[in-house]
Amino acid sequence: MDSKCLMLRLLLSFYIDSASTVPDLLSIFHEQEMTETVHETNGHGYLATFVGKNGRFVILRVHSHGLVTIDLQCYEEDNISQLDNLLNALETKLKALLNGNITRIKRLPALIRGAKVDRYWPTADGRLIEYDIDGVVYEEDSAYQNIKILHSQQFGNILVLNGDVNLAESDLAYTQAIMGSGKEDYAGKEVLILGGGDGGILAEVVKQKPKMITMVEISFIVIDGCKMHMRKTCGDILDNLKGDCYQILVEDCVPVLKKYVKEGRMFDYIINDLTAVPISTEPEEDSTWEFLRLILDLSIKVLHPSGKYFTQGNSVNLSEALTLYEEQLGKLSCPVDFSKEVVCVPSYLELWVFYTIWKK
Amino acid sequence: MDSKCLMLRLLLSFYIDSASTVPDLLSIFHEQEMTETVHETNGHGYLATFVGKNGRFVILRVHSHGLVTIDLQCYEEDNISQLDNLLNALETKLKALLNGNITRIKRLPALIRGAKVDRYWPTADGRLIEYDIDGVVYEEDSAYQNIKILHSQQFGNILVLNGDVNLAESDLAYTQAIMGSGKEDYAGKEVLILGGGDGGILAEVVKQKPKMITMVEISFIVIDGCKMHMRKTCGDILDNLKGDCYQILVEDCVPVLKKYVKEGRMFDYIINDLTAVPISTEPEEDSTWEFLRLILDLSIKVLHPSGKYFTQGNSVNLSEALTLYEEQLGKLSCPVDFSKEVVCVPSYLELWVFYTIWKK
Repeated sequence: MDSKCLMLRLLLSFYIDSASTVPDLLSIFHEQEMTETVHETNGHGYLATFVGKNGRFVILRVHSHGLVTIDLQCYEEDNISQLDNLLNALETKLKALLNGNITRIKRLPALIRGAKVDRYWPTADGRLIEYDIDGVVYEEDSAYQNIKILHSQQFGNILVLNGDVNLAESDLAYTQAIMGSGKEDYAGKEVLILGGGDGGILAEVVKQKPKMITMVEISFIVIDGCKMHMRKTCGDILDNLKGDCYQILVEDCVPVLKKYVKEGRMFDYIINDLTAVPISTEPEEDSTWEFLRLILDLSIKVLHPSGKYFTQGNSVNLSEALTLYEEQLGKLSCPVDFSKEVVCVPSYLELWVFYTIWKK
Repeated sequence: MDSKCLMLRLLLSFYIDSASTVPDLLSIFHEQEMTETVHETNGHGYLATFVGKNGRFVILRVHSHGLVTIDLQCYEEDNISQLDNLLNALETKLKALLNGNITRIKRLPALIRGAKVDRYWPTADGRLIEYDIDGVVYEEDSAYQNIKILHSQQFGNILVLNGDVNLAESDLAYTQAIMGSGKEDYAGKEVLILGGGDGGILAEVVKQKPKMITMVEISFIVIDGCKMHMRKTCGDILDNLKGDCYQILVEDCVPVLKKYVKEGRMFDYIINDLTAVPISTEPEEDSTWEFLRLILDLSIKVLHPSGKYFTQGNSVNLSEALTLYEEQLGKLSCPVDFSKEVVCVPSYLELWVFYTIWKK
């Protein structure tokens, strides 16, 4: 794969009051010696395409309601300033032709496809977001998930699990929120962390000198990747699976929780840092919600009566998914109350809901 | 303009090891009764376009280095689930044809153009960002700038000046940062705010019972819009241009600063909330930098020897622009020192640099 052969898109759209003069724009493409094709649209406005040199391709549409869209596809090694000039010329000509009767002009940043490093990681609420990612630091497939650590200029390294941005080195705000936003005292306490393979929570809780932290993370590959590449998050805490006041069990948390229930173990704090609440709001995905409820149910059983259970929820915009999650809380074998907090986690580029749950 | 006639784009790209079987994909478009045009590309891969019903248009490119891109244009009132099915069918067929020899498949969220409400506001460092904006609350043109207040589901109302996201109701972090991040005591102090028309800084400083705040904002239209629509930010502070310990001068700050210099006025805190450091890193835009330096120079002259001057800088990623700004600080008539802090302002979707400046 030739890394030079990437693809760019420049997108331009205009809102005009009159579309009649637009064919005059064609002369600009003709000057560029582009080959024109006019397409029959069956009454859906004017549509022409132009093929030029070096793989350039332009789609010009004049929609019946006054919207003009111009898309330009080109390769990364193309002459970008020449192309900017072409777009500028189009903009100038349109303005002149339409005598200022343009409501709005919008030129979007180029959308790059086929690049070695993928910069587009949509938010949980489905918005198109371009990250400032400039490198893939680590990539492995485990039996459970695809694990990537990507480098962002502003956020540092970012852990991406199955395409979801999990945590960046900039995201102490996430760790603080899922620990109760500085309002808890972990000194001398029994703490259980479910998941948390990036080591962020473990590293922060350890500082408060708890009696014992047990962290149950299913994937050694996540731990290994983060140990090497997320050190601003985990420090040296993942270098050993055991320390003065912590132990990391590389296991599925469900059988561990079941064993603890049987043994009558109790924890003062349980921090669930497993995968997010399902994004889907379709409850026919029964198994996901059932899995979530199973974890919750088992956890609440090993939670001290005055203990607290912390977990991340979802994007604040996904109100349906949040409501469904809260409905699950009403279905636990032991009745619970909860509160929630909206937190800005820098690398998420969307506000995130965190839950605190306790026994009634 | 018909609000139903909006435009969507669905973007799909594949990385494949072999492109030979791709023409087999064509049958899917033929089944959809789309009219095909194959374009001559002079050795730049395979390029076909398809015009379908309801204004649908597909661009299929098979690039010589194994990248396949499929772009689908359609109108918002089109049958979106039918189109999703088409894209799913293409994905399935490609996977089958290529026997799993696909390195990566990426389907991006639709890019919407021509909508009444524009959701795309690129970051200062030029990245494509889709906001969750669902309404235009306020729009006016002043002699100085275009003023918009847009509603975001998660951030509340957002003030956008000349297309730049200025401040959202979620952005107390901005106000706290430009006030010195909670490390200053404004009680009994003389405070000067340059700009700040959204009232956020004024509302926060007033709480600390300073001796007097003078705010100099050039645009009454900004004040008026924010007074109505940014009340989570400004509270009722903008309802009156004068209060117990503050006054708002609706004036250009340069003559005001010059007058203060002449009068020998001194301020304990000066907060510059004027427009951002120019994004451009081309110092040939002399006038912008000179304007910036003029403001700085005048401000430092009215700054108490033990006083502090706070200002926002720029995106942390725009290191060249930041360096140029810091060079200006070395050129002031009075020598100064400075420190900087990187802050996450929720609605910016990029980390932002704030400066503290003081007399040496």
